[in-house]
Amino acid sequence: MGSLEEAERKTIMGWAATDPSGQLSPYSYSLRNTGPEDVYIRVICCGVCHTDIHQTKNHLGMSNYPMVPGHEVVGEVVEVGSNVSKFRVGERVGVGIIVGSCQNCRSCEAEIEQYCNKKIWTYNDVYTDGNPTQGGFASAMVVDQKFVVKIPEGMDPEQVAPLLCAGVTVYSPLSHFGLKQSGLRGGILGLGGVGHMGVKIAKAMGHHVTVISSSDKKREEALDHLGADAYLVSSDEGKMQEAADSLDYIIDTVPVFHPLEPYLSLLKVDGKLILMGVINQPLQFITPMVMLGRKSITGSFIGSIKETEEVLEFCKENNLTSQIEVVKMDYINKAFERLEKNDVRYRFVVDVAGSNLLVDH
Amino acid sequence: MGSLEEAERKTIMGWAATDPSGQLSPYSYSLRNTGPEDVYIRVICCGVCHTDIHQTKNHLGMSNYPMVPGHEVVGEVVEVGSNVSKFRVGERVGVGIIVGSCQNCRSCEAEIEQYCNKKIWTYNDVYTDGNPTQGGFASAMVVDQKFVVKIPEGMDPEQVAPLLCAGVTVYSPLSHFGLKQSGLRGGILGLGGVGHMGVKIAKAMGHHVTVISSSDKKREEALDHLGADAYLVSSDEGKMQEAADSLDYIIDTVPVFHPLEPYLSLLKVDGKLILMGVINQPLQFITPMVMLGRKSITGSFIGSIKETEEVLEFCKENNLTSQIEVVKMDYINKAFERLEKNDVRYRFVVDVAGSNLLVDH
Repeated sequence: MGSLEEAERKTIMGWAATDPSGQLSPYSYSLRNTGPEDVYIRVICCGVCHTDIHQTKNHLGMSNYPMVPGHEVVGEVVEVGSNVSKFRVGERVGVGIIVGSCQNCRSCEAEIEQYCNKKIWTYNDVYTDGNPTQGGFASAMVVDQKFVVKIPEGMDPEQVAPLLCAGVTVYSPLSHFGLKQSGLRGGILGLGGVGHMGVKIAKAMGHHVTVISSSDKKREEALDHLGADAYLVSSDEGKMQEAADSLDYIIDTVPVFHPLEPYLSLLKVDGKLILMGVINQPLQFITPMVMLGRKSITGSFIGSIKETEEVLEFCKENNLTSQIEVVKMDYINKAFERLEKNDVRYRFVVDVAGSNLLVDH
Repeated sequence: MGSLEEAERKTIMGWAATDPSGQLSPYSYSLRNTGPEDVYIRVICCGVCHTDIHQTKNHLGMSNYPMVPGHEVVGEVVEVGSNVSKFRVGERVGVGIIVGSCQNCRSCEAEIEQYCNKKIWTYNDVYTDGNPTQGGFASAMVVDQKFVVKIPEGMDPEQVAPLLCAGVTVYSPLSHFGLKQSGLRGGILGLGGVGHMGVKIAKAMGHHVTVISSSDKKREEALDHLGADAYLVSSDEGKMQEAADSLDYIIDTVPVFHPLEPYLSLLKVDGKLILMGVINQPLQFITPMVMLGRKSITGSFIGSIKETEEVLEFCKENNLTSQIEVVKMDYINKAFERLEKNDVRYRFVVDVAGSNLLVDH
């Protein structure tokens, strides 16, 4: 990275959306100086999450532009603030979906800062200094050390990127809801970025994993490539009936409206349907479906910094890799387009450090 | 009770519905002989539950007639089978909503036999001998000892009756979901038979209890008579907003369609909305409401025999009484009528032993 002169530190290059078309293009902006609690990070790579599309295209009606997305960021520490003891220059670190929280509320005190009402999103939010936050599709970031995680030695940065959002998103509820022990039977509904991590993490925990899908199309990849134990087509009423009362949990990654009854039926008594898709259209269920088996419909939102560190260690120990397609920065708009069509196995990761951020081909 | 001659044991008198009008009238029928595992019980009293109306009026489309309802039964042991060691003649016992289960499945093995798929309902079901089961609005019942609970010494039979369904229905989820410790903040939505037991049991556990209602009508009784700590009118948006993120759980006893979002908003992170009303119209929610606070929508169905014994001990220890209106058998049709209009504080209990079961006035 070389020496950190004032000019270099303050003005960096990223790729931003400038309007709800969501098209990204080179954008130059300033970062704050590295404060006492801050870590200055040179970005190595950054994963592409479906949320990036929702945000850049203003699907949630809360977008501000210019917006540099990206919240699965792996980088190298270039400078640390005077109070930073957890990180050293040269170390590999990660940044996920949030970069701040109040530090005072029940959630912050319980180290589940992702549920803090005053959390600050990694991008499309306003930082405590009044400036907009900007994400990881950029040469650098300055982040409060509390929201930076260490990448265990020997892990490949591009492999790690999807763990910082998709990975911890699956790991967190399994951990929180007491579903880590081996021998459980889990279902993964939907086989996108989060779903594929779900299969891998659940398998590494020693679970019997059933992938549930609306069609037969992904049977081979689920069973042969990802190592799932079973594949269930939700429209096959006979097979669904056979599988009734068989699962301890289902991780439901479907991001659009779908009926819940067929999946609730698959759960054992005390089973949990864990929702991961932000769906603005209401989902429906009838109460006897939950009452008569004491089933829970619940959900979970990414994971804590602590859980992010745990999932990284877990993946390292279990030699668990994500399945990714690495692209350069100037492919990002195409990557978004393909992701919207679910045309990726299973996560795009942008090689930021290896890209020329100035040029839009 | 006197001697048990063959004729007396076999033919008894109850009050049955004979068609979906749901009108009950005297009905004579036979009980099986007391088998080795059976307890022959002379009924003392029996509570009236909303389910009795659903069943006698065929609201669920599964009713068979003649049907003797009643599943909050308190009685005295008159005879025991040769293998029965748990009960002695003369003891007070109770029978709840189920009288049989498979004894082999995961639920039975986990002593949550209420979730057994082959459970046998106390009435409007078929027993293992092929005969219809009949409930507690009758002079006697024969019940497998596994589904009979001992009434602790000194408890009043009429007070106990509502505990066998309404009481354990509230106690079971609080126990199961780890919500028994004092200091929690709970909400009770709806103040009927189950709701009023909810307030009393939660208070006895040392919780701060908020009654949530659609109108102001029950404020005084909730706060002054039942001892709730707070009263919230769900249409008062200002007060609802103030109470956001404040409750560890809500016991939702509303038996008709209602939106869930206002109540999910009242829950803290990790809070639980526990549904108790069988509602055939689907309920709705939007996924961010559960995901962004890791909240659970769940439900629970009565409780186990073990939990029924626990709730009886709990109520005895805490000197907890239910609020009831005791009536004679010939008032039952009027009681059903009033219950349908929610015109009872809070549970009818029929003094069966003190009624002339032969006469319909």
